[in-house]
Amino acid sequence: MSDIDRVLARIDQDLDAALERLFAVLRIKSISTDPAYAKECQANAEWHAADLRSIGFEASSRPTPGHPIVVAHDRSASGPSALFYGHYDVQPVDPLELWDSDPFEPRIETLPDGSKVIRGRGAADDKGQLMAFVEACRAWKAVTGKLPIPVSILLEGEEESGGVNLPGFLDANAKELRADIGLICDTNMWDAQTPAIVTMLRGLCGEEVIIHAADRDLHSGFYGSAAANPNRILARILADLHDADGRVTLPGFYDGVPELPEALREQWASLGFSAEAFLGAIGLSVPAGEKGRSALEMVWSRPTCEINGMGGGYQGDGFKTVIPAVASAKVSFRLVFDQDPHAIRKAFREHVRARLPADCRVEFKEHGAGQAIRFPIEDPAFAKARDALSAEWGKPAVFIGGGGSIPVTHQLKQSLGMDVVLAGFGLEDDRIHSPNEKYNLVSFHKGIRSWARILEALSR
Amino acid sequence: MSDIDRVLARIDQDLDAALERLFAVLRIKSISTDPAYAKECQANAEWHAADLRSIGFEASSRPTPGHPIVVAHDRSASGPSALFYGHYDVQPVDPLELWDSDPFEPRIETLPDGSKVIRGRGAADDKGQLMAFVEACRAWKAVTGKLPIPVSILLEGEEESGGVNLPGFLDANAKELRADIGLICDTNMWDAQTPAIVTMLRGLCGEEVIIHAADRDLHSGFYGSAAANPNRILARILADLHDADGRVTLPGFYDGVPELPEALREQWASLGFSAEAFLGAIGLSVPAGEKGRSALEMVWSRPTCEINGMGGGYQGDGFKTVIPAVASAKVSFRLVFDQDPHAIRKAFREHVRARLPADCRVEFKEHGAGQAIRFPIEDPAFAKARDALSAEWGKPAVFIGGGGSIPVTHQLKQSLGMDVVLAGFGLEDDRIHSPNEKYNLVSFHKGIRSWARILEALSR
Repeated sequence: MSDIDRVLARIDQDLDAALERLFAVLRIKSISTDPAYAKECQANAEWHAADLRSIGFEASSRPTPGHPIVVAHDRSASGPSALFYGHYDVQPVDPLELWDSDPFEPRIETLPDGSKVIRGRGAADDKGQLMAFVEACRAWKAVTGKLPIPVSILLEGEEESGGVNLPGFLDANAKELRADIGLICDTNMWDAQTPAIVTMLRGLCGEEVIIHAADRDLHSGFYGSAAANPNRILARILADLHDADGRVTLPGFYDGVPELPEALREQWASLGFSAEAFLGAIGLSVPAGEKGRSALEMVWSRPTCEINGMGGGYQGDGFKTVIPAVASAKVSFRLVFDQDPHAIRKAFREHVRARLPADCRVEFKEHGAGQAIRFPIEDPAFAKARDALSAEWGKPAVFIGGGGSIPVTHQLKQSLGMDVVLAGFGLEDDRIHSPNEKYNLVSFHKGIRSWARILEALSR
Repeated sequence: MSDIDRVLARIDQDLDAALERLFAVLRIKSISTDPAYAKECQANAEWHAADLRSIGFEASSRPTPGHPIVVAHDRSASGPSALFYGHYDVQPVDPLELWDSDPFEPRIETLPDGSKVIRGRGAADDKGQLMAFVEACRAWKAVTGKLPIPVSILLEGEEESGGVNLPGFLDANAKELRADIGLICDTNMWDAQTPAIVTMLRGLCGEEVIIHAADRDLHSGFYGSAAANPNRILARILADLHDADGRVTLPGFYDGVPELPEALREQWASLGFSAEAFLGAIGLSVPAGEKGRSALEMVWSRPTCEINGMGGGYQGDGFKTVIPAVASAKVSFRLVFDQDPHAIRKAFREHVRARLPADCRVEFKEHGAGQAIRFPIEDPAFAKARDALSAEWGKPAVFIGGGGSIPVTHQLKQSLGMDVVLAGFGLEDDRIHSPNEKYNLVSFHKGIRSWARILEALSR
């Protein structure tokens, strides 16, 4: 029996214990964006450092100006080295009333089709996925006493809250962290049967805009229409971000956005993607983006602008005839190819200021900036990882685009000069960032097995 | 010494006790729009009924499907009868952190200029104003044992929450409530020295719109631009309510809105109103309404559309890359002259539906409808009240327009065929509906004296 077969058998035997470990970490309320949960974030980091030490890694939770970063090394093997990145922080859980169970009391649920899912905040994004990698290492160590290749692990605690401290940390620790290839498990499969490696990722530019008008809330009967209403100003600013064809209106927004190469367009067309099924699964039917673009282009290769949050004035029950003093919105841009997040932030701010009455004031808050990224799929590491995935899932793995942003991929390239293999086992219906987040038990189990195979493949 | 002089002297002597009674009622948290305060509303109604009985009124708190309505009569005098209307409910107090003291723990504050104010929610709107009338009755009864004219009092508890139960109550009790003239104390003086009677009032049409898109909150990386974003749809709907000249775009919106009669325009011009001072007092400088209209027209004689509240998606600290399932807004229209609130509601709903993608859904909630009103200033009651005010304040009282809506004035006309003298002692800086609401002690004191004089004048 080969090493890998023994490791896979060990993974199968150890699944219940692996689930218990995952549940322990899912119970920690590591909501990074809310300062009230800072201690939980720290506890989560320390949990991982201790867990990794327990399987022979040299591991520690390192302080940053924000939440800690976990760094671990096991360099006992020879061969090409890998740096695995994951994030232990999670999204807020509001609206809490839409959860069917406590988001921080994870449980296994059996769905009507008999399949099992792990339910809880972070199950898929990213605790379940990062633990799939850790469990693969655990199995290798348990069976062979070592890993197939030298492995370092970096676990961030601010991925869901802008990740402002990671770039500085990477720069400051570049020599310690640099490896031959990066590995990340924070993406989806193509579908529940087809594993995938994401080779294109959109970038992100997040921005908060706060409009200040009168120095207090006003009665709309006394001041209505004479006094500037920040809700009305903000609605105009937000509505003007798109034209009637669904294109973003910021000057220069589409600079650095080429048409898709014909070969890639054909490959994507052959995937058999169904916009009806994609939107139908969430109760919609009409692609809402740029006219003349396919839904797959909209989410993979076209830039977007979304209003993630907005608010101003009275939002409680009943009615209040108020003109608020303040209104605000959180806006994010998903970026592709060579779009420059800093130029887009500048254009957005100019767009806002051009629509601001002379007696009003605007305040901006920056929430992260990351350029889009494409990886060199000709690098042999990508073929090795793809073949390992294909072997585990019994179906050829595909190279795909990704709609979400993983700023760290860009930072790893910038700071450490590394490319990254993005292999994840999430599914579109995982409800990440939403109530009732889940991760399929099969994703977790075969995810562990997949990483065990990839580690072995990279050693060859 | 004449009766009125003795009554005025009594009012002066009794001011501290009158303040204690006002403070007792200001401590009651009668927030009508929030169901959590229903018991406080009931307690407030019962307080008034008991207080009015204590000065010889036949008074009771009458149940309605919402909050109770207080009805009281003292018809021992002969002569033309009056029905006084006030409301005992108050606006919500959020944002609570902007209050410098507990909104429901009223207190007297001395301002830097030495003047005194009554601070607390409802001090001006409308508890202090309605108690000014009650205290005038109390003084008349104490001094002469009776009132100068037959008086009925009607105190509503739903003025700040749509007032849906009042019209039915008026219809059902028309015979009991009908009087020769209505009296209301819920308006402002022209300025701190100049008393005023409001003879034109804007109407109101309140509407809540809720946009539903996907059946759950979505990750904007996976679904961004392909999935409909209700924030974006709502921003477009709200922005499209005004054109570049600040006019409301709903078809037919300006039907029934004539230009101001030249004589009234001249009278208003002679008031010496300063848009700079009006807006400067709240930290603004640029009139935000229709181009080519004066600020006074904007708030008195032109219709408006205001977004009183809007919200959707993540509004907490930090950032969340979500596409929400739902976004909503509360919109109100202030109406003038013959605008029809029902036609405007219909036009608004059509405006919304025309901008709704085929796969989204809209829900509407109605929040009150009242037409604008003008009173016949040639009726002698208006001259008598004006002269009484002029005598009290030592300065001629003026007939003015009013920006706020007092739907009850329209209902009194409709149900009971009554005109109303709107004499109030609020000031523009009273911060009604806002944190740190106040009512000047002079307004309360001279307000009581004014009502004592008006009651006497109406008996002649």
